[in-house]
Amino acid sequence: MAPVIESHTDVLIIGAGPSGLAAAYWMARCGVNARIVDKRATKVFRGHADGLRAGTLELFDSMGFQHRVLHEGVEITEFCFWARDENGTLKRTKQVRSESLDNAPYRMHGLSQGRIERYILDAIKDRSNLMVERGVVAESLEYDASLEKSHDEYPITVKLRTLTEEELSAASNYGGSQSLSRTNVAPDDVEDVTPERKHESGTVEIVKAKYLISCDGGRSWTRKQLDIPFTGSTTEHIWGVLDVIPITNFPDIRRAATVASEFGTLLVIPRERQLVRFYVPLTEVDVSGRFDRSSITLGMMREKVQQMLKPFQFNFKVCDWWTTYQIGQRIAQNFTKGRIYLAGDAVHNHSPKVGMGMNISFQDGFNIGWKVALVAKGVAHASILDTYEPERRPLAEMLVDFDRRWSPLFLKQQDGSPPPDAEARFEAMKEVLISVEPFAEGLLSYYGDSPLVHKNGQDIAKNLSPGERLISAKVRNQADGTTRWTTGVFQSDGRFRILLLAGDIRTEEQKRRVLTFSEYLASTHSVLRQFSRKPAKLHATIDVVTIHSAPVEDVQLFDFPEALRPFDDDNGWEYDKIWGDEKCHWDMQCDGKVYEKWGVDRLKGAVVALRPDQYIGWIGGLEDTEGLSKYFEGIFRTPKQRALL
Amino acid sequence: MAPVIESHTDVLIIGAGPSGLAAAYWMARCGVNARIVDKRATKVFRGHADGLRAGTLELFDSMGFQHRVLHEGVEITEFCFWARDENGTLKRTKQVRSESLDNAPYRMHGLSQGRIERYILDAIKDRSNLMVERGVVAESLEYDASLEKSHDEYPITVKLRTLTEEELSAASNYGGSQSLSRTNVAPDDVEDVTPERKHESGTVEIVKAKYLISCDGGRSWTRKQLDIPFTGSTTEHIWGVLDVIPITNFPDIRRAATVASEFGTLLVIPRERQLVRFYVPLTEVDVSGRFDRSSITLGMMREKVQQMLKPFQFNFKVCDWWTTYQIGQRIAQNFTKGRIYLAGDAVHNHSPKVGMGMNISFQDGFNIGWKVALVAKGVAHASILDTYEPERRPLAEMLVDFDRRWSPLFLKQQDGSPPPDAEARFEAMKEVLISVEPFAEGLLSYYGDSPLVHKNGQDIAKNLSPGERLISAKVRNQADGTTRWTTGVFQSDGRFRILLLAGDIRTEEQKRRVLTFSEYLASTHSVLRQFSRKPAKLHATIDVVTIHSAPVEDVQLFDFPEALRPFDDDNGWEYDKIWGDEKCHWDMQCDGKVYEKWGVDRLKGAVVALRPDQYIGWIGGLEDTEGLSKYFEGIFRTPKQRALL
Repeated sequence: MAPVIESHTDVLIIGAGPSGLAAAYWMARCGVNARIVDKRATKVFRGHADGLRAGTLELFDSMGFQHRVLHEGVEITEFCFWARDENGTLKRTKQVRSESLDNAPYRMHGLSQGRIERYILDAIKDRSNLMVERGVVAESLEYDASLEKSHDEYPITVKLRTLTEEELSAASNYGGSQSLSRTNVAPDDVEDVTPERKHESGTVEIVKAKYLISCDGGRSWTRKQLDIPFTGSTTEHIWGVLDVIPITNFPDIRRAATVASEFGTLLVIPRERQLVRFYVPLTEVDVSGRFDRSSITLGMMREKVQQMLKPFQFNFKVCDWWTTYQIGQRIAQNFTKGRIYLAGDAVHNHSPKVGMGMNISFQDGFNIGWKVALVAKGVAHASILDTYEPERRPLAEMLVDFDRRWSPLFLKQQDGSPPPDAEARFEAMKEVLISVEPFAEGLLSYYGDSPLVHKNGQDIAKNLSPGERLISAKVRNQADGTTRWTTGVFQSDGRFRILLLAGDIRTEEQKRRVLTFSEYLASTHSVLRQFSRKPAKLHATIDVVTIHSAPVEDVQLFDFPEALRPFDDDNGWEYDKIWGDEKCHWDMQCDGKVYEKWGVDRLKGAVVALRPDQYIGWIGGLEDTEGLSKYFEGIFRTPKQRALL
Repeated sequence: MAPVIESHTDVLIIGAGPSGLAAAYWMARCGVNARIVDKRATKVFRGHADGLRAGTLELFDSMGFQHRVLHEGVEITEFCFWARDENGTLKRTKQVRSESLDNAPYRMHGLSQGRIERYILDAIKDRSNLMVERGVVAESLEYDASLEKSHDEYPITVKLRTLTEEELSAASNYGGSQSLSRTNVAPDDVEDVTPERKHESGTVEIVKAKYLISCDGGRSWTRKQLDIPFTGSTTEHIWGVLDVIPITNFPDIRRAATVASEFGTLLVIPRERQLVRFYVPLTEVDVSGRFDRSSITLGMMREKVQQMLKPFQFNFKVCDWWTTYQIGQRIAQNFTKGRIYLAGDAVHNHSPKVGMGMNISFQDGFNIGWKVALVAKGVAHASILDTYEPERRPLAEMLVDFDRRWSPLFLKQQDGSPPPDAEARFEAMKEVLISVEPFAEGLLSYYGDSPLVHKNGQDIAKNLSPGERLISAKVRNQADGTTRWTTGVFQSDGRFRILLLAGDIRTEEQKRRVLTFSEYLASTHSVLRQFSRKPAKLHATIDVVTIHSAPVEDVQLFDFPEALRPFDDDNGWEYDKIWGDEKCHWDMQCDGKVYEKWGVDRLKGAVVALRPDQYIGWIGGLEDTEGLSKYFEGIFRTPKQRALL
């Protein structure tokens, strides 16, 4: 008999895909006592999701690994629309490129989910001892609602079992027909091909947890345990997904492309290592709604692509990964139950063709992660957890809605009517793409009013909105003159931020206003002191970053009041807290127009409160310290309140 | 008695600092049978060299790890000159910035040598099984000149001994007073704190080698074995080097700065992880030229910096590394003997204050590395090895000359005359810096005429010079529309390159010229076929890259002849071989002015032969295939010639 263990953890995360890892990142970063388990034997190495949108890449920058995406991934620069003309000749109808992200830090990239998991795992390892326990399956879940009001109680009981070797090999992530070896796995993934197990096979562990974040995928075990309906529909269409190194003379094989044909429309997405992903319309299922997907072979998919790309040649010898899927569009009726939170595919299912799934799932985990981390640590009121579902559900609905409009454009004509001409196809696709773009790229999120979002201040920062992420901009460091995107300045370290747009302190009046605001920050009744456990660690809960509008050479670091320049006894002053909005002649992205981009007066400035996930929580003037205090009082517990927990 | 082993290797490298690792990189990349040993117990973790110049960073890009430097290092944006005014008040005289690199890919960065070693070690590991054998000391060297004419002979015999644990701990790289632990070493360096040994303590190995590259530092054992005089002088000045996290209100502490005082001039260089490096003038030695450097303490250095920075405060609690040195300026009389090549500090010594040592040493190893690799593989004529010393010695001389002009500016007034005023100090430093800049940044190298450099073609590419590196420019990929610096396009993979500047192929005449040139490339008498062992691997020895001047959307990949689009049976066409010189609205560095930058006619184009190290070897017109052939005939052996080896 394998042993039975009992243990306690503050936070248990089930599932180590993009959403589970995003949540785990915060536990590692905030030093929360947490566990993360996954039933599969290993991480993902190949295939699965691969589309990375601008907003996700900006979050990666705040997590410190976006440079790895830029190095390994493929930027998707243009979208090409192909269709047959009246003579049946396959032609490029349009090659288009959205210019809306020209001034943003990053644009869409194609890269395997396996690499993204690698980066987040590395970020977790660099910051903590938290390790994903693989080959561990949850087998029962009990929830005692009577305990949920007390911070110190463990309302959640989960039975975990370590799988046997036999079960493990069935649960591998190696992909259908492919075997893994040292030679075809990225060098830094090699160790993960055979991860260490925490417990021996068959070990049963009863884990008591204060909070549970479940990111256990489309067939979520947790969702079923909680009897949460997963409503929507499954369509009758079977699609193939193919990651191959194509051998083809199709000219746009390294650009994103749709290729319309009488069989439906092929979607082509360029990827790392000469790979290209194809979404292939395969077949309709019969009226019973059932179809044996295992009857589909790689050869069938190859032939279908060959037919669709004719007269261009198409073949491949290297197939990295392939699968089939039947589109389903579903949303869970609830995203939470008490202190249990579901995220990612566990609460929304849709077709992968929108190139957003990994992004929305990652962002779900990112959203609930920091909230649970701060509440579990006793820093924040438990009420902030109630913002999770209202913030994320509308996006899940928009995602599914996007898919409902987008996916049918890839199907063959259903009613026997003549297919639309190339121009009409293009216009229909363009219309959908343009209408969803701000949401799809993660630039607009529409978060509503809540303790975390006070809808105010738009007269002060005309282009910024509480409930949206700060618009990224490039600024110049006061201390060393280097330039950085704000996404990198605001590291995802679990702290809220007061962003002081200090205006131009070369004028006496503005200098006085900045000084007054800084004196407030340093005072005993400021939000910094009010919510910090140790007086010395003034910036432990809320970080302060200043971006001023004077030329960097005309002012000096020490012209700024001390509360804006955190000091540490061992490491001296922090130099990445004061920045200038100044044009930089050797870095054209740093154009000195940040205040204009944000709609803020260059002389008078503004104050912006940022959440740990870079969403704007509050906007006000330098004198509105009362508003600022109120905002943070709705979020943080005072040390006295913490002591009462 | 420890065992005595005998072995053979094609190439033995002694010393695994920047120059030895640069040479080893080529062995890994080209698949050469090679060994690399180092007498120290570990790699460098802290301190040592830290200045990275533009040209070096461009080479790193071609090696695939420059993104890591950008992520971890600190860009040095400005140079500030401080001095006391007539009232003794310390003031910033000037803050200057060279604009000469504004359009270059990279600018000077500060980052510890230990990280650079990490990146090169990783690049070697990704490509080969070559490992640095640490704690291995060379104890005898024999050279049999009678064998050096025969490719298959081993004229070099080196006795290697694996050090004992006791000897090892004395030879550690941990730095003076600092101890290493998991917590203060970069996470990816942890494994290297206690590297595996190949042989047990005391093992003696007699290694026979065809080629020896010795990069064993300023006190080079190899140089002494070969009785090569190391001429120059040691000055009477002792300097301290300090890597600390300073606690100071000196405003330019995160910029490069010189601070003049009555004790001499302090040099300040910002670094990664809040570190700052200080070069501190300490004392003069007595007339005997001897001084016990061990009498200098960290406290003495702290005090000296405090005095020099007054009235600004200065202190530190964290010292990462410190050392002292006595400036010496020396050059080895010979860089080579037969098939033995010395590189790096083994052949040139100078003060670290020029911020170039690691760069020149790395580039020495980079230069000899590919040459030895290609000759050892039998691909190239042995005569190309004779270019090593003529190419690198003049740079070593310029380096020492720069130091001879630069270092005295940091000394206190010798003759008792009044010190120069701030403006005069600034002008003197500026004059030196401006005069050496192109050389110091690695943008000009002045390589002379040789089999590897034919001085021609300047009427065809007016701004390019054989014997200099290709001027970096950003181009747009024909297949996927992404942009890349040419330094990344021309990967350092050991191949020469034919860079076809195809001009504008939308005109019939130019299209015909490009076709004719491509037919030459595909023909049996082309340099591609002439020097390739297998007819199928047309591009194995010489790669072909095309940069055309038409808009990328107006032409297609398959408009270019097949010889320009290498094909592989498994992986299809290579997509990174055809690029456009086109302005890109979302990447301002890609300005569509590459032809103008290089002085090439946009319509007619040019052909440029590049060496594996991106130096220009030959320039000609599209019709000058005879000149191109002659260039490569002087370098490569034909398969027939190889068979006769």
